[in-house]
Amino acid sequence: MMSLEDKGSVQTQTKVLSQGCWTQVSCPCCVSKQVEPLVLIQLSDSVQPVTKRWLISLIEASKRHGGAALLAHPGEDECGNVIVVSAPRCTLLRATEDLGLCKKYRNEEMASFSYHDRDNFTNVDDMQEFLTLAERQYIVKNELDSLQAQKKQRIPGVPEAPGVLEAWENICQKLVRAGVIKDIFPLHDQQRLNDLGRRWYSKKQIWRQPLDAIQSYFGGTMAFYFSFLQFYTWALIPPAFLGLVLTFPLPGGGGVVKEQARKGVMEEEDYGLSVSGHMVQAVFSMLWSTVFIEFWKRRSSSLSHRWGTWHLTERFAEPRPGFHGTLGINPVTGRLEPLFPEWQRQLRVGLVSFPLVGLFLGLVVLGMTGLYHGEALVQGFHQDSGSLFSGVLLYMPSIAHTVYTTILKNVYHAVAMQLTKWENHREESSFQNHHITKVLLFTFFNNFAVLFHIAFYKQDLPLLRKRLASLLILNQLVNQCTEVVVPFIVDRFLSAPQKKKQEDDLEMDKLRAQRRLPPFPGLFAEYIELLVKFGYLSLFSCVYPLTAVLLLLNNITEIPGDAYKICKLFRKPFSAPVSNMGVWQTAFEVLRFVSIMSNCWLLLLSPHVQEFCLEGGISGKNIILVAILVEHVLILVKMILAFMIPDEPDWVRIKREQIEFNSMQALGKQVRMI
Amino acid sequence: MMSLEDKGSVQTQTKVLSQGCWTQVSCPCCVSKQVEPLVLIQLSDSVQPVTKRWLISLIEASKRHGGAALLAHPGEDECGNVIVVSAPRCTLLRATEDLGLCKKYRNEEMASFSYHDRDNFTNVDDMQEFLTLAERQYIVKNELDSLQAQKKQRIPGVPEAPGVLEAWENICQKLVRAGVIKDIFPLHDQQRLNDLGRRWYSKKQIWRQPLDAIQSYFGGTMAFYFSFLQFYTWALIPPAFLGLVLTFPLPGGGGVVKEQARKGVMEEEDYGLSVSGHMVQAVFSMLWSTVFIEFWKRRSSSLSHRWGTWHLTERFAEPRPGFHGTLGINPVTGRLEPLFPEWQRQLRVGLVSFPLVGLFLGLVVLGMTGLYHGEALVQGFHQDSGSLFSGVLLYMPSIAHTVYTTILKNVYHAVAMQLTKWENHREESSFQNHHITKVLLFTFFNNFAVLFHIAFYKQDLPLLRKRLASLLILNQLVNQCTEVVVPFIVDRFLSAPQKKKQEDDLEMDKLRAQRRLPPFPGLFAEYIELLVKFGYLSLFSCVYPLTAVLLLLNNITEIPGDAYKICKLFRKPFSAPVSNMGVWQTAFEVLRFVSIMSNCWLLLLSPHVQEFCLEGGISGKNIILVAILVEHVLILVKMILAFMIPDEPDWVRIKREQIEFNSMQALGKQVRMI
Repeated sequence: MMSLEDKGSVQTQTKVLSQGCWTQVSCPCCVSKQVEPLVLIQLSDSVQPVTKRWLISLIEASKRHGGAALLAHPGEDECGNVIVVSAPRCTLLRATEDLGLCKKYRNEEMASFSYHDRDNFTNVDDMQEFLTLAERQYIVKNELDSLQAQKKQRIPGVPEAPGVLEAWENICQKLVRAGVIKDIFPLHDQQRLNDLGRRWYSKKQIWRQPLDAIQSYFGGTMAFYFSFLQFYTWALIPPAFLGLVLTFPLPGGGGVVKEQARKGVMEEEDYGLSVSGHMVQAVFSMLWSTVFIEFWKRRSSSLSHRWGTWHLTERFAEPRPGFHGTLGINPVTGRLEPLFPEWQRQLRVGLVSFPLVGLFLGLVVLGMTGLYHGEALVQGFHQDSGSLFSGVLLYMPSIAHTVYTTILKNVYHAVAMQLTKWENHREESSFQNHHITKVLLFTFFNNFAVLFHIAFYKQDLPLLRKRLASLLILNQLVNQCTEVVVPFIVDRFLSAPQKKKQEDDLEMDKLRAQRRLPPFPGLFAEYIELLVKFGYLSLFSCVYPLTAVLLLLNNITEIPGDAYKICKLFRKPFSAPVSNMGVWQTAFEVLRFVSIMSNCWLLLLSPHVQEFCLEGGISGKNIILVAILVEHVLILVKMILAFMIPDEPDWVRIKREQIEFNSMQALGKQVRMI
Repeated sequence: MMSLEDKGSVQTQTKVLSQGCWTQVSCPCCVSKQVEPLVLIQLSDSVQPVTKRWLISLIEASKRHGGAALLAHPGEDECGNVIVVSAPRCTLLRATEDLGLCKKYRNEEMASFSYHDRDNFTNVDDMQEFLTLAERQYIVKNELDSLQAQKKQRIPGVPEAPGVLEAWENICQKLVRAGVIKDIFPLHDQQRLNDLGRRWYSKKQIWRQPLDAIQSYFGGTMAFYFSFLQFYTWALIPPAFLGLVLTFPLPGGGGVVKEQARKGVMEEEDYGLSVSGHMVQAVFSMLWSTVFIEFWKRRSSSLSHRWGTWHLTERFAEPRPGFHGTLGINPVTGRLEPLFPEWQRQLRVGLVSFPLVGLFLGLVVLGMTGLYHGEALVQGFHQDSGSLFSGVLLYMPSIAHTVYTTILKNVYHAVAMQLTKWENHREESSFQNHHITKVLLFTFFNNFAVLFHIAFYKQDLPLLRKRLASLLILNQLVNQCTEVVVPFIVDRFLSAPQKKKQEDDLEMDKLRAQRRLPPFPGLFAEYIELLVKFGYLSLFSCVYPLTAVLLLLNNITEIPGDAYKICKLFRKPFSAPVSNMGVWQTAFEVLRFVSIMSNCWLLLLSPHVQEFCLEGGISGKNIILVAILVEHVLILVKMILAFMIPDEPDWVRIKREQIEFNSMQALGKQVRMI
């Protein structure tokens, strides 16, 4: 089915780009009747035709001559300010091997693709079937990014000062800096996009999203995000059910928990929640978070097997574009590339980034204490004078704190990005990990500092419950608004007239029109939102069992909202093949550990336990010791659980080992074949 | 130098085994003038010549014909009850590849050995240089162990009942069960052994043992043990120094610590140790244990690179001899072999082994409480009656407890072995891991239960100190006795006359005489001793800073003692190539975490802190909360430290990545070469 879509779309698109203007290929296997436009390079309006011709020749040139071995199309004419880029079969296949992607072998098993063994892979003659759209576009971007000047040279048509390329300088980065290239972005395939949208957000497919189609169109990063969101939504059903049972104990039906809950409610009316329910919920959320993460790991590994990305060779790949260093020979691969010593990077991380991040965390705490002091001060002043002015003043500390936090957050985000760039990571994944870790630490502090302060220092459970509930409900409302209402308005009132106008334009303008959409900002904000909410659930849900219900509702609106946003409101993003959620998964695992401490502590504060201590005459000291013991035992249980549930399903493990064994065998026989 | 030794010893040994009786080889590369006897198969005295001939023919037969492709020598004549086994070059080289050993390539770098690329490896023509003695002997054992009956058949010369081999039955195991084979053991090379001994224990080389020679002669397991012991001894110097400074503060010289210590001594005379010293020691041992383990990991990985064992293919190897299951095709390797489903093994571990181990741990605790109750009972009785009889009775609980513990320990060891066998692990390493984990858990409980009880429940620091000191000193005395005195006596008075007698015998008898030595019991007991002592140091040393000094003394006598024992008192053991200490390393890492909890707790109990609380009017509850906070922060710091110190030195990482990159490249090019 997808193959039909694919071929159809290629025909509709290519008919408008005059076939003759594409690069002529000499390699017999790369000749094809249709060329699929994959990536658009938007040049500046003032670009000289000679510069454009030079860039096109570079894109077309073979690798041996320092080119990218891609196909280029100059748009309407040589003076236009776009270049449309595609890739011939040979380049795509070689890049597939370099990336370490797995594809279907003739025996229907997935196998690491090898260019020299290409004829034994299925669909190898049809690139639209063999590689997904996201993979083809990523490969084109990758090839463009790895263009390097072979020797010191001038860029034709560019003034002297910015127009000199040093030997081995990255050409694309240089052209962006020199203002020649404005943008490089992958092209949407409108027909496939509409099909995907119909199967995805229009039908509100929350429980069974078309994940394979998402992976194929948008790439692995996006597909893993939505897979996780779907898995998480399913996983929220048990805690949501428990939360409902604990909060609204139905007469007749609900068993032990319910009865305990009812008894609890009678005992502790002002809590609105039974004490035993509190304990049930605390123990449940500790176990649930472990089982959830462990099973997600299994799901994640089977997805990465399904999508052929569990054997990526990222470590040996070219360094990421922003990486710089002294030119030298990579000791591992033997290639000439910039080198930067690892110890220097570690020094930068340890001696500069680490203290700076600590400083900002300190500033968050400072802000919080400032808020409390300010509030106390203003309260005192208001009680003394009681004027209108002092009544207005009462709001000032909160407002000041909000302004302070917002400024701090923005400054921090900029600082984190600059620091991570300065740390000069060689691999994109390492860069992402360090950047995300920095931002996450701050976000956690910013979001949870107040809650932790209430729970651990003030030890005020009712206040904690009120705060959590207001946070969740406010969040939910804001979310509903932004995720559902805004896209609806945009869709109905803003984009509709534009669409009509577009249909009259030339196809080339349609391609160019995609630039009008804002670039996709990445999944950063989405993941952070998920994490913070997961934090509310696993850390504090025992004081407010409806958390899971609210999160479930939130996810149900989040999925189609996110899907719509990604399909309609942004440019298509480039997406590297990935084998898991990367550092986000680690972040969830860390939260899982913090949740034990938090839940043990909240258990200790629970009125039931406190009362029990008073009645039994047990000293506060001893009960704390018991709590510590329980905490350590629970951490042990979590570790055992994590160890007992294998990270990969058996069938994935066997397939992975098969591939490893085969490659080992093949390696041994290699020289015999000469 | 080693090569000279090697050749010399081969000549001395082979001249006595008549050259003509060895298997004649047809393969031109395997023809050599001398054959080195590697392994001795001791048959029962009543073995029939027909059985012996059949076994020899099996050992000599090629792999295609279901043989082991080894060389056999019938001893003096066909009726003798020994078979001497050696290996031809081809078998050794193929096995080297199968094991995944790395050897020196012609460019002087280590590379995964490939049989088909053999000519590019250095020393490949001289097996005595190319493979170590331990590797050659292990390969012979491995080949013998993997002998399988090709079809159902009778063993010639063995009575009907035990003499029928089922298809694919393991032949060696069957022959051992049928009483045909009594023993299979590797032969000592007396000359090399004497050389090694001279360089090792005779010169008391504690700080710089001949590790390469040990690895070459005894194999990786032994070499890693002694490397660790040496590393550990070096690492004990700083804590020993600190312990001495804290215990005996010299006048003038010792700085802040000393002054604090002196002040402390004056304040707290009955403790014999200053309070601040206590804190210094606690913090120091937490940091020290982390840094120690992290740096050992680095050392270990560079050793495994040096010895070419960091790329072993154990996972794809043949199952271990004791493994049984229904015959089927291994989904990974495609070989016919017994299969046993993983989930069934996990069920056995989870539902039987786990509860049984728990039961025994419960019995240990029961014994301990029994001891305390008994002591209290007897004490009461003695105070009431005060007779001689009751005075004798006072010792009864201790004696009963010792007897109980000893019996329990022996029963448990047997149960642990049987359970692990019953769990039916496929790989030897997995078997070892499960067995060691079981024994370790029990040993920890047995050794530390009393100390933990005193520290955490009784909260009696002086008692803890007395107990620890007496344990250490007693242990030290017993150790001195067994490790130094016993070998000396054996050497001087018992083995000397035997030696003389042996020299008059035939060389064949000399080989056979090695069987008179007891088989080597493994390093189990040695490692456990090390671990328990490391536990004393990292868990409790802050109450008795001389621990490190005593351990240092202990190690200094331990190294030559162990070395002597291994060289002189036992048969040579088989030793599989290993890349690290395996599960023992994990055990040390676990202790490191427990040490944080224990040290935090002991800090809390320290008189200085208690006094500070009393003076400041801080409640016991709050100080405990602070301690928990400190504990969690310290765990975080440990994790960061462990993360910051890379597990491999940079040069090892680069070499490893080089090999991985090369094999990936080679794999890609493989088909092109056809």
